[in-house]
Amino acid sequence: MSKRKRTKRKARMTHLPPGSAPGTLISAPDAVQSNIDVIAYGPEGFVEEDLTNASEIRQYIGKWPVVWVNIEGLGSADVVKEVGEIFSIHHLALEDILNVHERAKIESYNDDLFLVLHMMAVGDHLENEQLSVFSGKHFVVTFQEGPIDTLEPARERIRRGVGRMRQLGSDYLLYSIIDSVLDNYFPILEAYGETLDRLEDDVINRPSPDVVGNVHMVKRDLLTLRRAVWPLREAINSLMRDTELTFSAETRIHLRDCYDHAVRIIDFIETYRELAADLMDIYLSSLSNRMSEVMKVLTIITTLFVPPTLIAGIYGMNFNTEISRYNMPELNWYYGYPFALFLMFALTLGVILLLWYKGWLGVLSKRYSDK
Amino acid sequence: MSKRKRTKRKARMTHLPPGSAPGTLISAPDAVQSNIDVIAYGPEGFVEEDLTNASEIRQYIGKWPVVWVNIEGLGSADVVKEVGEIFSIHHLALEDILNVHERAKIESYNDDLFLVLHMMAVGDHLENEQLSVFSGKHFVVTFQEGPIDTLEPARERIRRGVGRMRQLGSDYLLYSIIDSVLDNYFPILEAYGETLDRLEDDVINRPSPDVVGNVHMVKRDLLTLRRAVWPLREAINSLMRDTELTFSAETRIHLRDCYDHAVRIIDFIETYRELAADLMDIYLSSLSNRMSEVMKVLTIITTLFVPPTLIAGIYGMNFNTEISRYNMPELNWYYGYPFALFLMFALTLGVILLLWYKGWLGVLSKRYSDK
Amino acid sequence: MSKRKRTKRKARMTHLPPGSAPGTLISAPDAVQSNIDVIAYGPEGFVEEDLTNASEIRQYIGKWPVVWVNIEGLGSADVVKEVGEIFSIHHLALEDILNVHERAKIESYNDDLFLVLHMMAVGDHLENEQLSVFSGKHFVVTFQEGPIDTLEPARERIRRGVGRMRQLGSDYLLYSIIDSVLDNYFPILEAYGETLDRLEDDVINRPSPDVVGNVHMVKRDLLTLRRAVWPLREAINSLMRDTELTFSAETRIHLRDCYDHAVRIIDFIETYRELAADLMDIYLSSLSNRMSEVMKVLTIITTLFVPPTLIAGIYGMNFNTEISRYNMPELNWYYGYPFALFLMFALTLGVILLLWYKGWLGVLSKRYSDK
Amino acid sequence: MSKRKRTKRKARMTHLPPGSAPGTLISAPDAVQSNIDVIAYGPEGFVEEDLTNASEIRQYIGKWPVVWVNIEGLGSADVVKEVGEIFSIHHLALEDILNVHERAKIESYNDDLFLVLHMMAVGDHLENEQLSVFSGKHFVVTFQEGPIDTLEPARERIRRGVGRMRQLGSDYLLYSIIDSVLDNYFPILEAYGETLDRLEDDVINRPSPDVVGNVHMVKRDLLTLRRAVWPLREAINSLMRDTELTFSAETRIHLRDCYDHAVRIIDFIETYRELAADLMDIYLSSLSNRMSEVMKVLTIITTLFVPPTLIAGIYGMNFNTEISRYNMPELNWYYGYPFALFLMFALTLGVILLLWYKGWLGVLSKRYSDK
Amino acid sequence: MSKRKRTKRKARMTHLPPGSAPGTLISAPDAVQSNIDVIAYGPEGFVEEDLTNASEIRQYIGKWPVVWVNIEGLGSADVVKEVGEIFSIHHLALEDILNVHERAKIESYNDDLFLVLHMMAVGDHLENEQLSVFSGKHFVVTFQEGPIDTLEPARERIRRGVGRMRQLGSDYLLYSIIDSVLDNYFPILEAYGETLDRLEDDVINRPSPDVVGNVHMVKRDLLTLRRAVWPLREAINSLMRDTELTFSAETRIHLRDCYDHAVRIIDFIETYRELAADLMDIYLSSLSNRMSEVMKVLTIITTLFVPPTLIAGIYGMNFNTEISRYNMPELNWYYGYPFALFLMFALTLGVILLLWYKGWLGVLSKRYSDK
Repeated sequence: MSKRKRTKRKARMTHLPPGSAPGTLISAPDAVQSNIDVIAYGPEGFVEEDLTNASEIRQYIGKWPVVWVNIEGLGSADVVKEVGEIFSIHHLALEDILNVHERAKIESYNDDLFLVLHMMAVGDHLENEQLSVFSGKHFVVTFQEGPIDTLEPARERIRRGVGRMRQLGSDYLLYSIIDSVLDNYFPILEAYGETLDRLEDDVINRPSPDVVGNVHMVKRDLLTLRRAVWPLREAINSLMRDTELTFSAETRIHLRDCYDHAVRIIDFIETYRELAADLMDIYLSSLSNRMSEVMKVLTIITTLFVPPTLIAGIYGMNFNTEISRYNMPELNWYYGYPFALFLMFALTLGVILLLWYKGWLGVLSKRYSDK
Repeated sequence: MSKRKRTKRKARMTHLPPGSAPGTLISAPDAVQSNIDVIAYGPEGFVEEDLTNASEIRQYIGKWPVVWVNIEGLGSADVVKEVGEIFSIHHLALEDILNVHERAKIESYNDDLFLVLHMMAVGDHLENEQLSVFSGKHFVVTFQEGPIDTLEPARERIRRGVGRMRQLGSDYLLYSIIDSVLDNYFPILEAYGETLDRLEDDVINRPSPDVVGNVHMVKRDLLTLRRAVWPLREAINSLMRDTELTFSAETRIHLRDCYDHAVRIIDFIETYRELAADLMDIYLSSLSNRMSEVMKVLTIITTLFVPPTLIAGIYGMNFNTEISRYNMPELNWYYGYPFALFLMFALTLGVILLLWYKGWLGVLSKRYSDK
Repeated sequence: MSKRKRTKRKARMTHLPPGSAPGTLISAPDAVQSNIDVIAYGPEGFVEEDLTNASEIRQYIGKWPVVWVNIEGLGSADVVKEVGEIFSIHHLALEDILNVHERAKIESYNDDLFLVLHMMAVGDHLENEQLSVFSGKHFVVTFQEGPIDTLEPARERIRRGVGRMRQLGSDYLLYSIIDSVLDNYFPILEAYGETLDRLEDDVINRPSPDVVGNVHMVKRDLLTLRRAVWPLREAINSLMRDTELTFSAETRIHLRDCYDHAVRIIDFIETYRELAADLMDIYLSSLSNRMSEVMKVLTIITTLFVPPTLIAGIYGMNFNTEISRYNMPELNWYYGYPFALFLMFALTLGVILLLWYKGWLGVLSKRYSDK
Repeated sequence: MSKRKRTKRKARMTHLPPGSAPGTLISAPDAVQSNIDVIAYGPEGFVEEDLTNASEIRQYIGKWPVVWVNIEGLGSADVVKEVGEIFSIHHLALEDILNVHERAKIESYNDDLFLVLHMMAVGDHLENEQLSVFSGKHFVVTFQEGPIDTLEPARERIRRGVGRMRQLGSDYLLYSIIDSVLDNYFPILEAYGETLDRLEDDVINRPSPDVVGNVHMVKRDLLTLRRAVWPLREAINSLMRDTELTFSAETRIHLRDCYDHAVRIIDFIETYRELAADLMDIYLSSLSNRMSEVMKVLTIITTLFVPPTLIAGIYGMNFNTEISRYNMPELNWYYGYPFALFLMFALTLGVILLLWYKGWLGVLSKRYSDK
Repeated sequence: MSKRKRTKRKARMTHLPPGSAPGTLISAPDAVQSNIDVIAYGPEGFVEEDLTNASEIRQYIGKWPVVWVNIEGLGSADVVKEVGEIFSIHHLALEDILNVHERAKIESYNDDLFLVLHMMAVGDHLENEQLSVFSGKHFVVTFQEGPIDTLEPARERIRRGVGRMRQLGSDYLLYSIIDSVLDNYFPILEAYGETLDRLEDDVINRPSPDVVGNVHMVKRDLLTLRRAVWPLREAINSLMRDTELTFSAETRIHLRDCYDHAVRIIDFIETYRELAADLMDIYLSSLSNRMSEVMKVLTIITTLFVPPTLIAGIYGMNFNTEISRYNMPELNWYYGYPFALFLMFALTLGVILLLWYKGWLGVLSKRYSDK
């Protein structure tokens, strides 16, 4: 395998030092500075603002039917803390916002909902950023870990007033956020589907050791994706069934659509995992095949050249032909040399016939060589 | 493996661009033009018509106990939209109709049912077309993705008035559609069963690298089939149990038959998947066997010819026999040459006895060669 | 593998042409002619008769506490139809009777029960015949696909009046039929257990390529058996729990015994499947072992004979010893030849010591050869 | 593998001939003669007696709070029958007592409980004997298949009056019996744990073909153990929950302890099964490793000796140097022979450098040889 | 593999001799002496003391809202017994405290809770010590098996009065203990994640036989971890749902956080197990690859040198050229030797071309050699 740098993505596991008091808020050391912006809207209009200070959020609360605060970057623990105070976010939820991890979840705190989702992008490797959502009757707060942003289309729909976004409440916005996160997984899956198709082609037509590493990377990434979607499916299902929650009947039908998408995504992931496992098997069988082919060539060469070599060796012996008529009389035959060559040829032909009879000669022909 | 074109079938995953407003209706770029026809019937007769305009559907509604509208081809988003308006199909259902995917489902919208089924055909590869069904008290609307049509027998039964088709309502028509889709899977499964039997025969009697690719394709297709049937089984089960739905007791017994068929199909798929997995194992073991056989032939040839070659080499040395009586006196023996040949023969015989003792000579005999 | 005919048993999948109206009754083309016989009995006696005409059944109905009609052979669709009319068997049940398949099931039609069971026999391969049972308050109708008959002991108990058979109603007869079908699986399983023991012995002591095909056939047959028993277990369980059904408390305890038998059978099937999977692994490892052994022999022979051959080759060179004292002076040494032989011997000994040091020489000794 | 006798233990499957009337009582042909003894006890004392006749049991009933009858050996079907009559044991339970099988179970007959347990011992192989227990309000009857006896400590506690054994009723005795059977599995598991540790050591440090057979035997025995414990866990669980049954609150807490033990045992079995499966994988990889090592030695020897042999061959040709100055002038060079030896040496050195560059020479060093 | 000592950790299975009366209290032979210390606290302060005698505990009971007794070392069975009497710990719980085992559990005894947890540390191998917790309304008793102590931070929070530790009751202390045990698993998992990353790197870039043993050890340790966490997840879940238990609403939300942590830990364990299984597959494929590469080198060397050797052998034959013009006239050709060399060269070139055509020469180039 070539020496190319293999960009690895460790399973992310940021966690507080064991033994910290619950609710301790510390930003991860490599987190980027937080940036706050607000969109507040209702059927009659909307306002969008970049804030420099978390306390400015308060002026929107109560004035608009829905206030959507978006925090991008989790580097400023104090900003997160202040936002937490403004919307009475439970300290355990705040802890989960700052300590990003790979598992999606939906939890309820009284009448509010707390979601951990993941926005992904696939370049050289699978990028994975946490999106935490805290949602109440009249507000939605989203915390984005980094620059991947799949929420722009939702914002655009608010700005343009298309669809029923502005007519409906914060539950519909929450649905839209879940939906946009899920929708975003489809092109990623498609990319993996294409990678697998390409690897399948490689493994059947030109197997090389690189395939193993590549299939392994696909399997790792699919495990990461699965961890992001599997708990989401269960969570959406419970949201759909739970009658106390704040979802209107209309939004509930849309949530069922989300659930259906989650089920389809999991379906694809499982199918891809099975295909990837299959590819490893096919690769191993192609390795065995190749080795068997190499062995056959070795055997053919050996069986073709070793027997005549023996004959040549025999007639290269130096027995004294003058002492006895039993000592290599062939050397003095008139047709001794042609006889020896004929012996070699006959032996070789015999071996060739044996190999042909066993069907091994094909290994030398074109038919096998383009595999 | 030969260079024959491998017709691949990507897991289909048409989807809207992420971030589209829910309910956006866009036809897939390669979808064929839509074609509308209507069969309206009741106990006393039936009428069948090809329509050029979706709005003509309205004239059948309310006049016949059951109106069955069939749309073939999903290329005309506006036709689908208009049909959707006529029958008040929810915009999320319309989205699912246009964005075909591989997973079956049954959803209820108020008193109406929405089904996603798949009609398949097996030629060079498995063809898979979505059949969306929207069904209400007095109508059934079917949307066929392409030319595969397993519904003709149902139409024929309406036309001829055989069975109880015309006596019973739209629920029985809906059952007939599900039943005809499921029934159609049996010959497909039978085809795969025969393919597996053939591959099993190949893998045991004449294993070749092609087997791997073929088994892999069967496994892929079985995964596709499973995705089409597995959710259907659950869905039919819930239809059977749900007492609020519009199925009469009579139709319900028929639905149980459908459920039984779905269970049997899944059973076959799982069995076939296990058999296919087994075939890979058998193939790998036959590869190992062959390699072992090749190795034995190589070893036999080597052990037969290398030792005499050494003896020939020894008596080919040029030591000066005149200087000393220790220098290759055999060269001047009267029976020197026969002695040397005898040595070679004895050595070879010894090796043959060793091989025979280990039971390896069988590799050269007929018994192994026809494998 | 030898050319012996491999009797295959395709997964059976008789089905109507897709699109047939539900309840269409067509016999399978290779089905044997139907044969009707009746046993009617009660506490005070019994009567047994071979009937030539299905309509003669009517004369027994209502006259005896239990009427047991047995149809052997499914070739006469009209006979099955008439029997169906006499006992009001639902047309979907009749369809299942004629279109035999491999999955067991128990369904209720109003107060009547419909069962699909399988009677098996193991000779060269696993024979599998469907037994359909339709049972009501005072009658049991059994439809046997072919000549395998495990019901004779039940008939014998009726004739002799042993046990409580004649005292109890049709529910006890139904239990007896299920019980005799299940009991019959034990000797079949025992046969497979013995086959596996034999294969295990073969695979460890004398592995041959035949093992793979044989293990595969056992696995196929176990899959067929599983499909016959697995759904039965669930069905018996639901019969035991369902309080509305026609089973008396006494029969219910016997049903629990049936359930226990079904559980044990499934247990055995699963155990045997695991053992069969293990055998494949062991076979593969023994293949690897053998190959490694072959390789060692090749390596030993090569390393023993190739180095001395080089020495012989060197002293076979024709450099002119007269021109220079550097040109192969050994040829004119007094002990030149013994020296050369000693060189060869020393080199070979060195190689033997190396091999002994690595512990490879064992491959030539008795210890490995009887494996 | 050596020829040592492999003591096999067939999956036990004694069963009546198919078609026997339910409740037929026949002893297995190899069952040992039955031996009856009784312990009757209460808070104030106990009495223990060996009985020669089953009817003597009646004199203890009603006189002591708890009567424990133990039958060792199932060879006397009439004794079992009489005991069955004395305690009104259902004929299906009696059938299960005589026809021993490997699956544990707990069934209730009215207010009485019937248990099938297994007492095991591990010597050369896993010994497995059925313990059937029938327990009512004031009695417990145990049927031991053979000489393995794990109940002695319970008897001893009754004799000595230690613990609360004599104070509590037959439910506590029943618990004690289940507990002693379960406790007895721990040392057996420990033995298998040690066997696995030893095999793990073997497979990593000195892999030999025997490992495969040994791992396979461990897996078979673990399957047997699992079949003995798995159903027991479920059964104990249902005993704990069932409020109608005859267990006092005090005994119920002890039952929970039993349940916990069963769970731990199953846990160990599953862990051991995974470890055993792993060992097979490790063994296969070590086989591959060894083969690769053998191949390398072969390749090294070949590459070291074959090129110089060619050179020796070339200078052993007999071209007439006198006819032309192009015919092997080297033969007449002053330093011809040293030149040839140098050529050989250089070629061999080149090959050694190539192998060293590829890092293959390590195979000859100590580092690999002790693996 | 090198001879380095492999520190093994047997699955721990201390248990009483089978047949002991339930509740027998015996310390494990290698248990360390017990050491008692007490922290009693309330909102207004705390007291911490090392006790020499278990009976001194009584003076704290009833005086402080929460009394936390910690016993380190299980070597003094009488101390454990006395503590058991002071807090009325059930004798079965005491048995579980002394007989440490690997499975976590939570049981309730009346209003008290009994927990078995495991504190782990990872050095050369995974260290595993049992932490038993018995908790009532106003007290928590913890029994630590050995020196691993993850509870210090909780003690520190009591001492410093940070968080709400001192305000809340014994249920919050219990939560804190569970939480600190769970939190402690994250760095351990991280260590295994890094080990797997390293092994993955090794297996792809420089596969060696050591990898197999190391992967196997990781899998063993992950099995141990799983056994410690899996039952805990279920148990915490039931604590969260059980409304009768002594957890306040506030603590319940914290418990949900614990549950979430347990779920994440299990998630990681399962992911790591899949990755470890994958590594074995990759290692096996790299072994096959290497072997195939070795075979190719052998084949190349053989095919390059064996054919010219035959030609050299032919012209080394000693046929008498004087007797006939058919006997090796080449020997007397003017360009005989160049002709022979040309023959050899041509043959070798032919072979090289064949190998190049098959793409095998790459094995000798740099590209493959650094793999």
